[in-house]
Amino acid sequence: MNPSSAPEMGTAQEQASRILPEPASRAPLGIVAGGGGFPAAVAEAARAQGREVVLFLIRGFADPALERYEHYWFRLGSLGGVSAKARARGIRDVVMVGTVTRPRVRDLGLDWTMMRLLPRIARLFRGGDNHLLSGVLGLVSEQGFRLLGAHEVAPELLLPAGVLGAHAPSEQDRADIARALILLQVLSPFDVGQGVIVVDDFVAAVEAAEGTDSMLRRYGEMRRNGRLRFAAGKGVLVKAPKKGQDRRIDLPSLGPDSIKRAKEAGLAGIAFEAGGAMVPDVAGLVEAADAAGLFVMGVSSCEDEA
Amino acid sequence: MNPSSAPEMGTAQEQASRILPEPASRAPLGIVAGGGGFPAAVAEAARAQGREVVLFLIRGFADPALERYEHYWFRLGSLGGVSAKARARGIRDVVMVGTVTRPRVRDLGLDWTMMRLLPRIARLFRGGDNHLLSGVLGLVSEQGFRLLGAHEVAPELLLPAGVLGAHAPSEQDRADIARALILLQVLSPFDVGQGVIVVDDFVAAVEAAEGTDSMLRRYGEMRRNGRLRFAAGKGVLVKAPKKGQDRRIDLPSLGPDSIKRAKEAGLAGIAFEAGGAMVPDVAGLVEAADAAGLFVMGVSSCEDEA
Repeated sequence: MNPSSAPEMGTAQEQASRILPEPASRAPLGIVAGGGGFPAAVAEAARAQGREVVLFLIRGFADPALERYEHYWFRLGSLGGVSAKARARGIRDVVMVGTVTRPRVRDLGLDWTMMRLLPRIARLFRGGDNHLLSGVLGLVSEQGFRLLGAHEVAPELLLPAGVLGAHAPSEQDRADIARALILLQVLSPFDVGQGVIVVDDFVAAVEAAEGTDSMLRRYGEMRRNGRLRFAAGKGVLVKAPKKGQDRRIDLPSLGPDSIKRAKEAGLAGIAFEAGGAMVPDVAGLVEAADAAGLFVMGVSSCEDEA
Repeated sequence: MNPSSAPEMGTAQEQASRILPEPASRAPLGIVAGGGGFPAAVAEAARAQGREVVLFLIRGFADPALERYEHYWFRLGSLGGVSAKARARGIRDVVMVGTVTRPRVRDLGLDWTMMRLLPRIARLFRGGDNHLLSGVLGLVSEQGFRLLGAHEVAPELLLPAGVLGAHAPSEQDRADIARALILLQVLSPFDVGQGVIVVDDFVAAVEAAEGTDSMLRRYGEMRRNGRLRFAAGKGVLVKAPKKGQDRRIDLPSLGPDSIKRAKEAGLAGIAFEAGGAMVPDVAGLVEAADAAGLFVMGVSSCEDEA
């Protein structure tokens, strides 16, 4: 195995030790990288902790700028090759970050490892998200790796509590957020999506399988076609992780795109559970929110307070 | 006042007496009629109970075939004229049935009574449905009328318990229905829409302000674009009235169109709370369900059983 060449580590390493369930491995961290700026943020955070990183770049999704790190390109369907390379580099801990949209099957580059796993993967796509995610975890650990969450590797990228930008929620916004958090809490046992839009005490949309972007579009359409009579600049998108959700795979990320879509929908702001979302680029998020006139904040869910 | 010329009444009248909070009035029943076949069904049911009916036909929506009853045409915005005519005919009880889509303002034919009420009506369009509906009730009773529900006038049009057509739900369908009913119960205090789609234990869609048709389309799209991998002919649309909902205005109606849209979405069937929906045309509903291969049934909500 290839021992880590990490230099002496200071407080960043101590911090990582507090977060990780076991002492941080000195072996390189494997980062499976989809699209967006999130993989680079996690790689930088790991390096700042003195940890070597090896990136597995998903062809068609990962940013070619990530080639500045030690890296291997692979196609989504070729899990077998990735496992062999990762083992050869002595990697034990793996984190998966970045966006991947559903590819065409012929772009997958299926290898035999994946072919063997496909029936099980297909089965995972039934039932709620939580089933899917715990299934992925099972597959990864079967390959001999430990799947870490980006929040474990880079806790400084977690959404902090409080208002992030120049705009603060109004009293009505805060009431809407409180209502939304309670609703999300009662929905949680049903493995239903983690988002809701509340405007002037009114629950305008609840996210299930369609995803947050689709829910935001729906709210915007209802405003434009007159089904809802709320003025622009009112109402809040609130998201919180489900109870018992495995945060290693499924933490939502919050960035300038989120602000853009909330603005288009006509909302006043966004409130995600503090610690329940990753913010790869705080400065970019704040800049976008301030320019759009939206508030963005981390809130404590009522469950956490109980 | 104009006493009713109703003939001697038998069991139908006795039945109505049991349903109505006060003895059925002998004055004519006012039926404010929107689109569809529902107003005729209610008019026939009231007549079968020996009650005279006067129809107020909403221009642009009501079926001209309803002119076979005593009737007045009016435009949606002209509540004042309707009130005067209804009072002149000695009407005390009013029922509102049939569909009305959002009209253009210039088609409303606003009169001064409505102009005075408009600010209050506009305010009613904020907040949840229940606020809107209790507001409408207030307006109607201020005009000196008693608003009855179609289910009070014609209880035989309420969805009965049990399977209506040739197709019965599978064991999985029944499990999905049970899950949906519990979810609707926990959503109820939030004044959220009354519908949910559950497939193989998975909550695929939750209805809020967008309405049932929009939710059905969303589910169909998620199946077609591959976001959800459920085969056609699986899953259930379940609806139940909200707790504390005033059933005089807001009972959903269930007909061949409902079957068509559930079929297009790819579901196995529809379950509405028994007594929680109106079925203006049972034969047409059953025929459509049987032809589509869907089940349709009335179910008891867990709350009712408790």
